[in-house]
Amino acid sequence: MTDTAAPLDHSRMPYQLPFPPEAAAEIIVPGALPEDERVWVPQAPNVWFRPLCLNTVSGYWVNLLRVRKSGVLSRHRHPGPVHGFVLRGRWHYLEHDWVAEEGSYVFEPPGETHTLVVPEDVPEMITLFHITSCMIYVDPWGKQTAYEDVFSKIAMCRAHYESNGLGGDYLDRFIR
Amino acid sequence: MTDTAAPLDHSRMPYQLPFPPEAAAEIIVPGALPEDERVWVPQAPNVWFRPLCLNTVSGYWVNLLRVRKSGVLSRHRHPGPVHGFVLRGRWHYLEHDWVAEEGSYVFEPPGETHTLVVPEDVPEMITLFHITSCMIYVDPWGKQTAYEDVFSKIAMCRAHYESNGLGGDYLDRFIR
Repeated sequence: MTDTAAPLDHSRMPYQLPFPPEAAAEIIVPGALPEDERVWVPQAPNVWFRPLCLNTVSGYWVNLLRVRKSGVLSRHRHPGPVHGFVLRGRWHYLEHDWVAEEGSYVFEPPGETHTLVVPEDVPEMITLFHITSCMIYVDPWGKQTAYEDVFSKIAMCRAHYESNGLGGDYLDRFIR
Repeated sequence: MTDTAAPLDHSRMPYQLPFPPEAAAEIIVPGALPEDERVWVPQAPNVWFRPLCLNTVSGYWVNLLRVRKSGVLSRHRHPGPVHGFVLRGRWHYLEHDWVAEEGSYVFEPPGETHTLVVPEDVPEMITLFHITSCMIYVDPWGKQTAYEDVFSKIAMCRAHYESNGLGGDYLDRFIR
């Protein structure tokens, strides 16, 4: 085994590789920015998301958020950490004075409350978000109005895919 | 407060917004694909990474991995989950038959052992990786040869930034 670019011959290996039998299955999503409009789940006016990983065991989800035509994601609080990477467009939070541009990375700590706004001159914004725990929607005074967690996300996606012909089972590939 | 696009007047709010005093600080990295070559930390021949979030409290890190000219990231095992999103180029694992193309998302479950290869016809590959726990480098038979965790990553980055003029303190903005 001197050429690391050659496939390994697993049958020759005394150590069980590459997977322990209990390991979860991988998720591979080629072309995660899809042309098939059906995978985008409506979230609010001009706001959609598409699931990539819905982790029911650790309680988090990874998705792409898409906003068109001056959309707003209602004010909410995060009890867990959030990681974002802007793939297209630009957005900001009403509560902060910085702007997330294309190619920017953002870490939002637990305890953040914010309102995501995409300005009118941005035709399309797409950001990869990794969200742990839940989102607690609040009014301007911080009073809870609703929540979302990985299970409510699953229910939203499943209902949407059942209604648009993809089928509820389409979602299973993203759930662990 | 009828116009959600207008900044909120926090002084009028009875509920403490937007941050609890104990909340960690955000991390904002505009232009995470930088032109300043100094932020890229050498990892192996033709392989570099740049840190975005080094979480010492939960034990994970988020970084960009960059590979040029047919680079290989040595065989390693992940005891924790990994999330990847390909921003440029293309790569595959010797242990799998799928290819991660630009715009692809990948979830790698705990228990994965793999060897990342960028083929010769790809001039540059950049992938966003979110890695929990550690990487255990192994030989082809699965025997441990080395490891990396968030603390060894911090040490690598700090030493590199100290040596190239950015200064070791430059790293602090990415550490929580």
